[in-house]
Amino acid sequence: MPDEKRMRSDIAWSSADRIVVRGLDFSSDVLGKMDLASFSFLQIMGFPPTSEQSRVYEAIVMTLVEHGITPSVLAARLTHAGAPESVQAAVAAGLLGLGSVFIGSAEGAARMLHDVGPDDGADLAERADRIVEGFLASGNAVPGIGHPIHKPIDPRTPRLWEIAAENGLSGGYVEMMKQVSFAAERRTGRRLPVNATGAVGALSCELGLPWETVRGIGVMARAIGLVGHLLEESRNPMAHEIWRRADVEASRHLREPSEERRAK
Amino acid sequence: MPDEKRMRSDIAWSSADRIVVRGLDFSSDVLGKMDLASFSFLQIMGFPPTSEQSRVYEAIVMTLVEHGITPSVLAARLTHAGAPESVQAAVAAGLLGLGSVFIGSAEGAARMLHDVGPDDGADLAERADRIVEGFLASGNAVPGIGHPIHKPIDPRTPRLWEIAAENGLSGGYVEMMKQVSFAAERRTGRRLPVNATGAVGALSCELGLPWETVRGIGVMARAIGLVGHLLEESRNPMAHEIWRRADVEASRHLREPSEERRAK
Amino acid sequence: MPDEKRMRSDIAWSSADRIVVRGLDFSSDVLGKMDLASFSFLQIMGFPPTSEQSRVYEAIVMTLVEHGITPSVLAARLTHAGAPESVQAAVAAGLLGLGSVFIGSAEGAARMLHDVGPDDGADLAERADRIVEGFLASGNAVPGIGHPIHKPIDPRTPRLWEIAAENGLSGGYVEMMKQVSFAAERRTGRRLPVNATGAVGALSCELGLPWETVRGIGVMARAIGLVGHLLEESRNPMAHEIWRRADVEASRHLREPSEERRAK
Amino acid sequence: MPDEKRMRSDIAWSSADRIVVRGLDFSSDVLGKMDLASFSFLQIMGFPPTSEQSRVYEAIVMTLVEHGITPSVLAARLTHAGAPESVQAAVAAGLLGLGSVFIGSAEGAARMLHDVGPDDGADLAERADRIVEGFLASGNAVPGIGHPIHKPIDPRTPRLWEIAAENGLSGGYVEMMKQVSFAAERRTGRRLPVNATGAVGALSCELGLPWETVRGIGVMARAIGLVGHLLEESRNPMAHEIWRRADVEASRHLREPSEERRAK
Repeated sequence: MPDEKRMRSDIAWSSADRIVVRGLDFSSDVLGKMDLASFSFLQIMGFPPTSEQSRVYEAIVMTLVEHGITPSVLAARLTHAGAPESVQAAVAAGLLGLGSVFIGSAEGAARMLHDVGPDDGADLAERADRIVEGFLASGNAVPGIGHPIHKPIDPRTPRLWEIAAENGLSGGYVEMMKQVSFAAERRTGRRLPVNATGAVGALSCELGLPWETVRGIGVMARAIGLVGHLLEESRNPMAHEIWRRADVEASRHLREPSEERRAK
Repeated sequence: MPDEKRMRSDIAWSSADRIVVRGLDFSSDVLGKMDLASFSFLQIMGFPPTSEQSRVYEAIVMTLVEHGITPSVLAARLTHAGAPESVQAAVAAGLLGLGSVFIGSAEGAARMLHDVGPDDGADLAERADRIVEGFLASGNAVPGIGHPIHKPIDPRTPRLWEIAAENGLSGGYVEMMKQVSFAAERRTGRRLPVNATGAVGALSCELGLPWETVRGIGVMARAIGLVGHLLEESRNPMAHEIWRRADVEASRHLREPSEERRAK
Repeated sequence: MPDEKRMRSDIAWSSADRIVVRGLDFSSDVLGKMDLASFSFLQIMGFPPTSEQSRVYEAIVMTLVEHGITPSVLAARLTHAGAPESVQAAVAAGLLGLGSVFIGSAEGAARMLHDVGPDDGADLAERADRIVEGFLASGNAVPGIGHPIHKPIDPRTPRLWEIAAENGLSGGYVEMMKQVSFAAERRTGRRLPVNATGAVGALSCELGLPWETVRGIGVMARAIGLVGHLLEESRNPMAHEIWRRADVEASRHLREPSEERRAK
Repeated sequence: MPDEKRMRSDIAWSSADRIVVRGLDFSSDVLGKMDLASFSFLQIMGFPPTSEQSRVYEAIVMTLVEHGITPSVLAARLTHAGAPESVQAAVAAGLLGLGSVFIGSAEGAARMLHDVGPDDGADLAERADRIVEGFLASGNAVPGIGHPIHKPIDPRTPRLWEIAAENGLSGGYVEMMKQVSFAAERRTGRRLPVNATGAVGALSCELGLPWETVRGIGVMARAIGLVGHLLEESRNPMAHEIWRRADVEASRHLREPSEERRAK
């Protein structure tokens, strides 16, 4: 067949006696030698992280694993109720809602900081003002700041800044993320501190992760979290109760229109 | 509403200033203190692993992250071609094929060993013979042995046994898995050594992981692997080429029936 | 590359000026000429249905489109809340729970009847007794009979039998499905009439649909139903309320352990 | 619990002896009385279509069912290879790629025409010029025009226009879609006739379908198409061959670096 484009992947290959991932022999150089976070970094970036990069990358991933009973967790549990034999389908259902609303804000923060570029000596506060103006002018929320529950601050943020600093990875992106928060507070008069997704976005940039992969990292982190929820669901389910209550309530006005009318 | 069953999850909760996962304060006791594999173990099991358990659990997860260009990877890449804006959907598509054929064999090995129970002093070889007979009689393959490519042995298996032994977790389940392999070889006259999924199944049992969660662990591990493939696909795609070739070839006999006939 | 197996699909092909599906020119012979149910039958079976087959097939599909606020619908709505930009992901999430518990029973009924085979002159009641015994002995529910809500009968069943009879497609499979219901009632002493999925299973067999495709037909039918739910969700959402209530209730015992204790 | 928002769905409800969808008794008024396309319209819009609306809606859905061996079909088939027991997962995997690249263009055309509004007496050609300029200025392709294979015209488009006209539904949106094509041709000097997705977008507007639901309609239509592909895959698979070839080719440069070098 003419005009063929060669298909090519640089990630892994294997032969009868070897498995090689990103140039390392999996059995002798990876297994038992490298930790899981470092292996994930290697898989994505193509080279192993330094010890410092690994600690910061691990902190990013861990921050995104478990966020309580979220819509994502509920979709996974409800799927499990119908297809308990397909755990992979329940995990997948839980991942499918990790779009623009939830994981999107870590991606958005990384993209915002990436588009700005690192500290180039210019006045950071003024640059942050321009960024905030840009988002507000376009009608979009500034990503990575404020939190509906964690007030006055998101308790993960100072810890993430600390881990970055301890590992020499608190640079211009971290500083710019903080400045964006200050600029947004100046502009709106509200408390809008950097939240965990903003910190994740900033640390992703410090690590040189492409912003396009930040959502993917969040997705894999949630997959880790969902496995725990699905084991719990198989032992102490909540899906049937959610179903029963929603079904009864949502169609009550159709089922008992006269009682509904009387109740008014 | 009467008859309500209380919904209950023991995994996590948060307040304005705290996030607690499995009883540990996430910001102060987990982030920067616990490694990713240990956190995953904690999330699933409800208690933190010992250092030895953590190393063996980590080896299990890492073994399942990256298996080259698999149907799962291809489904993810093809999905990315149509919805590059939804990385979560591409990861999910890649996970959906992790069913009975692929990840199923680690689950199957864990279940087989779990059903047998650990070493109880009886003659292991005889018990292994009975297990193998049971599978063959029901027309099913014995899970966790043999490999189409890795011959004579799967190079990951001895390394996994080694890690288990180094961490004091090479017990009755590991021994039984080996005996199953020997029994199958005796019975069939073929070389059927324990493969990586068999070793993963045995180590899962040594760790006390419920067999129902083994597939889930495989699914989350592959999610980690897929993120690397999707970043590569966004930069050096193969989906369009797979599509073009399959489309041309699969319908050639319909498109050019006369040429097809002539070619015979 | 040697050893290639030719890839081949007989479903469709196209050229610059034509699109051909299952041998019919799509623009001139299908569009505006064939109804949607007939086109679906053609797509699956490879030949167009007779008018009678089409009516019965359409009744099967329509029976599976809309079942109220199900776990499947809830998973789709919760996914939409996180990724409103990816309607395809929300539909997919809704389909993923259509496994062994829900759609599985139509598939199970079709498979049961297929394995039995059509009326061969033997005593039907006795054959039905054997089938029921087989299921009960293996600890499985007999598929296609009984209903938790629709009592004493599922109102769709007599209508489906009627449509089959009107179209000359009420044969040995329908009779056997009824006999299985009678046998189960004799055996258990409970009212266990044929439910909608049992009728769907029987009519699928009458049409010659392979039992392996019955679940797929249910899946596509639910996709039709989910689109309506997702439009409603985008206008009058329930996902956030489900999330809020589940989150509060499920972790109350962790959040307020003392109040919980006091309430006892 | 205070602050509860009432959950409410107007789609369906059931009791022991009735199932009601959009106000119609399913067993007596829908099953065997209404065709599948009309039922789908009812499900989405909340009211039954006129006969004319039903024919045009059916033409839209049917146009989107089967597009040959697409990335979507391949993702479904590859998923089936790993989880043949979960047809719902294979269908879902096939739907997940129906994002911005493929189904997106029908949605985009509907949105473009919806934003413009119907014929209001102004000079259509001039308004179309402005639309085309807007898309080109923002660096986006004008949706619904041109086709890589179907040249000089997409054979489905004239048939869709014909069906619309026969049913009295060829109005201002159809005219505007044609004008957009002319404007794009004037502006670029290339042949850019309305393609099938452009016609689908225009007819969706004529029917009053919200543009947000057009992608959903495409998704459900493809679900119908995928069921046929998955039955074919289970009988005459291509997934393993795609896998084998991609695996061999993609990692050849890693597996045999010296031979690769020699071949240059």
